[in-house]
Order: sequence, then C-alpha cells, then structure tokens
Amino acid sequence: MSKKQMLYVAKIKDGTVIDHITAGHAMNVAKILDIGEKSNAIITIAINVPSKDLGKKDMVKIEGRELNPEEVDKIALLAPHATINIIRNYEVKEKKEVRLPKIVKGIIKCANPACISNSNEPVQPLFYVESEEPLSVKCHYCSHIMEKQDILRQF
Amino acid sequence: MSKKQMLYVAKIKDGTVIDHITAGHAMNVAKILDIGEKSNAIITIAINVPSKDLGKKDMVKIEGRELNPEEVDKIALLAPHATINIIRNYEVKEKKEVRLPKIVKGIIKCANPACISNSNEPVQPLFYVESEEPLSVKCHYCSHIMEKQDILRQF
Repeated sequence: MSKKQMLYVAKIKDGTVIDHITAGHAMNVAKILDIGEKSNAIITIAINVPSKDLGKKDMVKIEGRELNPEEVDKIALLAPHATINIIRNYEVKEKKEVRLPKIVKGIIKCANPACISNSNEPVQPLFYVESEEPLSVKCHYCSHIMEKQDILRQF
Repeated sequence: MSKKQMLYVAKIKDGTVIDHITAGHAMNVAKILDIGEKSNAIITIAINVPSKDLGKKDMVKIEGRELNPEEVDKIALLAPHATINIIRNYEVKEKKEVRLPKIVKGIIKCANPACISNSNEPVQPLFYVESEEPLSVKCHYCSHIMEKQDILRQF
C-alpha cells in the first residue's frame, strides 16, 4: 500500500480491504455487503481517491470480516477491477482480484417476469456478460438485457 | 481532533466534516448528501469507530463542499448529536451542532395520502417531534405518526 493511500483511510488489523473499486461505486459495494444500521464492524470507506492505475478509485475496509463467495461475485459485477485483500495482524495474508466471468450463474435473477427462469421450473438463472463497463448482461433463456441499475435493484 | 480519530480517516484540506453521527447512520447521511456514482468529491466515511462521548459513532468527511441548510436539517432528524465542522486549509473554521427542533417544517411530507398537507391546499407539512431516538414525529394535521424508516424513504 502506498503512502498516498495511507492518507485517506488507515490500515486495519484483521479483516478485508476491497481496493480498486471503480470510482463512485463504494456505496454499491456497501449495499452488497449490507453495511448499514445493523453492522457492528468498524468500516472505513474512501471515495474518489487518486489511483495510479485507475485515475481515481474507491476503497472499503472492514474490520473482522471476510467475504463469502456470493459477495465476491456480486462485487465483480459492479467493480470488475477490484482487488480483495484479507488482512491478518496488519498484513496482507491473501490477495485476490475479482473477475467478472463471461457467464453469470445464480447470483442475479432475470428482470423479465415471463422468463422461464422466473417460473416454477427448476431452471437456474444464467446470463452472458455482453459488456463489462458499462455493465450489460443478456439472459440465456429469454434474451432480456439487464444493465447495472437493474442489477443493483436486486442487491 | 484526537489521535484516536486520526487513525481511521485523515484530515481534509477544505470541506465539511460531519462528526458524532449516531453509530450505523453514516450510510443514511450519505444518502441525504446524495453521495453516489455521480459525486466527484473525495469522501471518507468511518463507521462504528470508538467515541469518548457516544461509545461509538460514525463520521463523514467531504472535500470541497459545504452543506446547505436543508441537508443540515435532514441530518438533524437522523443523527441529532452530529456536529458539522467547516474546514478551510486543514483548520476548523466553523463548528455547529445540528439540533432537532421540536417542530419540523417543510423537509418531510406526511406519509398519509389522505392528509390535507398532501392535497392541493396551500398547506406546508408540519410535524411535532415526539421522540428523538428512536425518531418519531406526529403530523400536525392528521396525527399520523412517522418513524425513522418512513422518513428515510423520502430522502
């Protein structure tokens, strides 16, 4: 971590740092992680801070919590350049880049109520990523296109 | 500012620090201030950090922006202990405590659609604050009670 980044939000002892979030998307990541009135964890968020690679970026640091795979997959949809660092005793113990797969399974639903994936059939929602930024996915079953705002509404 | 606070989010050069926000309410304050994808300002948020006075608290720091009176009034509804510091060249130039008045005028609407304040009559919404925490306000015209979640939906 560079000195520049240290200026905005401090290191954490144990927990997760989500770095390189697309600028302006920290609040969406916070929504995915259900950060709100009921959270007890110490959380720091930095929005629109300078970034060498991205020009500007957001960061979210959460004390004492590691993310589950579903949360990581959701973050990948909204912030495909994000890196997730697991911190233990102030040191990065694990570093992973989120990756937006070409095919998205299970974590979002088709917004078309008539789609077979919304019926009682045992059909798992499945989407093709048509564009990463701006995000656009297409339903395998009914070809309905969903964009970022449609997806955010489900989180 | 104490050393302890410096550990979480850094000083800003020019802008506004909203301190002593009721713990867990920073995201609501962010919503009031319309912090999201379209913001360009550098913003840092600290949630559930230790506080001498409140046990724990939230903070929001916004570079290059001062709040308008309506924003301050809305924050008072959700975080009645908040202090707002205007920062210029790293120093606190002005400090004000938000204050939840006994009577709230104009900034929220009655959630009862049949209330006269929701008709075409020239009637300004007016509420009595029945309880600060948890927040509860009563409409002057129809006695409808609104709680925090009802009010948040309007912001």
